[in-house]
Amino acid sequence: MSFVDLNRLPAYGVLQKLAANPYNLNTPGALTPDRLTRCSCVSGHFTLAYGTQRLDDEVLDALQTLADQSGVVTQFLSMKQGAVLNRIEGFDSECRQVLHTAMRDLFVSNPYCPAATAAAAGELNKLQEFLAELDNGQLTNSRGGTFTDLINVGIGGSDLGPRAVALALKAYQQTGRRVHFISNVDPDDAAGVLVGLDLSRTLVNVVSKSGTTLETLTNEELVRAAFLKEGLEPRHHFLAVTGEKSPMDDPTRYLRSFYMYDYIGGRYSTTSMVGGVLLGFSLGFDNFKELLRGAAEIDLAAEEKDVRRNIPLLLALIGVWNRNFLGHQTLAILPYSQALIRFVAHLQQCDMESNGKRVNRQGQAVSYQTGPVVWGEPGTNGQHAFYQLIHQGTSVIPVEFIGFRKSQYGDDLVVQNTTSQEKLLANLFAQVLALAGGQDSENPNRIFPGNRPSSILMAERLTPRTMGELLAIYENKIAFQGFFWNINSFDQEGVQLGKRLANRLLDHFSAIRGDDSYEGGEGDPVGWAVLHELGLPRDGADRTGGGPI
Amino acid sequence: MSFVDLNRLPAYGVLQKLAANPYNLNTPGALTPDRLTRCSCVSGHFTLAYGTQRLDDEVLDALQTLADQSGVVTQFLSMKQGAVLNRIEGFDSECRQVLHTAMRDLFVSNPYCPAATAAAAGELNKLQEFLAELDNGQLTNSRGGTFTDLINVGIGGSDLGPRAVALALKAYQQTGRRVHFISNVDPDDAAGVLVGLDLSRTLVNVVSKSGTTLETLTNEELVRAAFLKEGLEPRHHFLAVTGEKSPMDDPTRYLRSFYMYDYIGGRYSTTSMVGGVLLGFSLGFDNFKELLRGAAEIDLAAEEKDVRRNIPLLLALIGVWNRNFLGHQTLAILPYSQALIRFVAHLQQCDMESNGKRVNRQGQAVSYQTGPVVWGEPGTNGQHAFYQLIHQGTSVIPVEFIGFRKSQYGDDLVVQNTTSQEKLLANLFAQVLALAGGQDSENPNRIFPGNRPSSILMAERLTPRTMGELLAIYENKIAFQGFFWNINSFDQEGVQLGKRLANRLLDHFSAIRGDDSYEGGEGDPVGWAVLHELGLPRDGADRTGGGPI
Repeated sequence: MSFVDLNRLPAYGVLQKLAANPYNLNTPGALTPDRLTRCSCVSGHFTLAYGTQRLDDEVLDALQTLADQSGVVTQFLSMKQGAVLNRIEGFDSECRQVLHTAMRDLFVSNPYCPAATAAAAGELNKLQEFLAELDNGQLTNSRGGTFTDLINVGIGGSDLGPRAVALALKAYQQTGRRVHFISNVDPDDAAGVLVGLDLSRTLVNVVSKSGTTLETLTNEELVRAAFLKEGLEPRHHFLAVTGEKSPMDDPTRYLRSFYMYDYIGGRYSTTSMVGGVLLGFSLGFDNFKELLRGAAEIDLAAEEKDVRRNIPLLLALIGVWNRNFLGHQTLAILPYSQALIRFVAHLQQCDMESNGKRVNRQGQAVSYQTGPVVWGEPGTNGQHAFYQLIHQGTSVIPVEFIGFRKSQYGDDLVVQNTTSQEKLLANLFAQVLALAGGQDSENPNRIFPGNRPSSILMAERLTPRTMGELLAIYENKIAFQGFFWNINSFDQEGVQLGKRLANRLLDHFSAIRGDDSYEGGEGDPVGWAVLHELGLPRDGADRTGGGPI
Repeated sequence: MSFVDLNRLPAYGVLQKLAANPYNLNTPGALTPDRLTRCSCVSGHFTLAYGTQRLDDEVLDALQTLADQSGVVTQFLSMKQGAVLNRIEGFDSECRQVLHTAMRDLFVSNPYCPAATAAAAGELNKLQEFLAELDNGQLTNSRGGTFTDLINVGIGGSDLGPRAVALALKAYQQTGRRVHFISNVDPDDAAGVLVGLDLSRTLVNVVSKSGTTLETLTNEELVRAAFLKEGLEPRHHFLAVTGEKSPMDDPTRYLRSFYMYDYIGGRYSTTSMVGGVLLGFSLGFDNFKELLRGAAEIDLAAEEKDVRRNIPLLLALIGVWNRNFLGHQTLAILPYSQALIRFVAHLQQCDMESNGKRVNRQGQAVSYQTGPVVWGEPGTNGQHAFYQLIHQGTSVIPVEFIGFRKSQYGDDLVVQNTTSQEKLLANLFAQVLALAGGQDSENPNRIFPGNRPSSILMAERLTPRTMGELLAIYENKIAFQGFFWNINSFDQEGVQLGKRLANRLLDHFSAIRGDDSYEGGEGDPVGWAVLHELGLPRDGADRTGGGPI
């Protein structure tokens, strides 16, 4: 297995030439029925329709060659098998395996990494027992009442993915169960959630792999204080999801502890106990297991080497085509499903924290673009917001639409002779066609240039199973893109400098406790004076080297 | 008053030359205390700290000249005075005034547009009376009970701005009042909101200027059906915010109607009755008036011609500098306030629908970039998500940070010797410094290139007053940028093609009602077959011209 820069692969030059004349979507006859049905790729229960991307068979063949030359499927397989892929060769780095796939490799008799999968299965059993005790009334609050609410305290990967999935599957929430989230160190986040909650019936799920995340520990203290204020013993309400032996792994402070592992990156942790405790409480154990089953199915489908039969790989390649060969800087992900309201926020982390990198696996600065800016909101809402720019702005924005043929609740109504679900789908298709085909007009303000690329990722219905598939489609797409770009998608050194500078400021705030000078004042309303005292901005940079924080 | 393309202004060439050597933020001595405190602009209760942008006095002077040559402040003033600025010269267009500022021009004895402001004041009086009737028990449900909940049914501008502000000011919500939102035509959106609501105590605020918005009418029908199912008479629960004489202006169907006007664009309508009814119900009339007062204060401050003393103008110019001269394609807006969780979604609409345009006011295609992609999430959450890419990705992302010195609730706690609010601010400052200064390291993966531009928009506390200011700062920034780019920021022709194509699909769905063929099937899981039947994609585009939909 070798790791080579994207632009050193022979197919790179071929693709550069092809990119000089990409397929035009807005010429007569460009979008034939044959093309649209043929440009269709199936993995699990999803179909990717990519006939409205700016590529043809010649480009696809070259992308296939690129994938073969890069060896990304081999790298993906070695990831699942436990290779130490979270590293930079020759330099200090995390040096870890990348085994989020092992958390769901539960449905075969011979998992790739038996130890990791056995550990995951052990935690799942603990979770199943815990949830059963809640269900059968064995575990109650001090007054013998049931627990109805759960507050998740976590940030980043301990918040975004679990929250996105909890919202996506709210239709499957068990009766009498509600979940809440506190993530931001902004004290108003916690205050806003605690207002009006019956804490005596509330569990608090504190999630931090290291057990040292500043925001999470701070919010935990805020919530503990609220429990104590109501005369409730936090030990009977607080759960921990953390690494074994972390400072949070402490039975004297928590009702139960569930473990995660150093080989699970935060942004890939939804299918570990990080998502499990919260989602199990909300949706029930069986639904969480269905989520895992969906993810496992896609993990398997992603081993396929034919790019036309592997959605995660094809999505990755289309992204590379748009980013590195057609030069587009952003990617809009637009789900036509209100339930996916926070899914793009999760993908922002998963994608941008993974692939927003500038050095390759050998520690050299890359000479091509890596991860795009990922953004988006659900349609049809977005149509009434930013679609104006997508259609008629001066930058071209590639789009990945996500759609479902049926609604979750099934509460629908025929208005003006069509159902809401039909309206939703009609709008999705209409956007794809409008972006691709454009429109001529005598009125220059009504010209749509068209030729703007998009694709549709579609399934029957958003269920725990397809949600698991969708999660894994994107996790694996992102891993593939990291392999193409020859970067380490599994570390996040780019967040450390800010942390370190923040800690220096906090040391100062701590030292002047009780003094209001940091609040700024006349002539310095932002409060730069404090920073000056610290010598922070004076030399234009903190250039003292990047040791451990 | 003349309208000239950005690149035909004499200062444009000067700025192009200066852009070849922009100010470097990551050299020793670049960020002096003097620079940081001096690069500070005040409007209303906000300070804009822009010392960490890549500009110096020479650039600022050239930007001042650009503003003077472009005449943007004169254009802004003429907008407030009622000029017909929503138009394209020589072509069919909306041809309307742009008078959202008149909705809050209430605090002086001589408003710019007396008729528009008098109409706004009249609606405000109606609202005040209505809210008083709710408060004093004069207006109750059929069982004599109070109304505790309000569902807002609207999409785009009738949803995003009001929702963002309602969430931002949740700390000011009146006891016993809750608000909910249904926007998406996805039937699951309505179903998810209606679950568990006591409809007998619920008001429904239906918002559509035209009274014909497909999503809103569809959702209104869904909600009416839910009321009827519970034996409740919708006429006693439903409110309308719409244009006078629109199909929704019908006292037989609504408890009350409040009016908006064709000179208020949806994305600029939060300070009209579109925001008023919902926010008045939630926050009380006085707090809504404080919001208007804050906006009015900034509308006045934005008339200042000195770019160093006008935050909206300076923000606009910094944006033009970063977009047109330094070549950055996106703008991240990152509020360090969890309450602003949906404010960026509002700004996405306000900015991208206004300035995602490709023809100038004379109907010619522009030859420079217009509106950027605007995106973002609150910090510190974002730090644990996409900041990796902002610090170490291959694209430079200009950032606008928003911060407040004090929290809203004041529920704070000292943990590890600092408060949460101190942690929040320390992180904000740390990010600005890290982006600007960067970091050298022996370890290439720990190098931060720095020299990445950002600014901080800061106030004491997020209140109804400062929220109104913040809204108007961005509304006016966006209007200024539209003037610089010589585009019409007040129409949205780019949303029409998708609407028209969707309607053609819906006509088809309507015709085959009861037939399942649109759901796709074997070999065509996305359902392209339907589109073929309509001849939609066959000729690559719908190129039949852009008449009215």
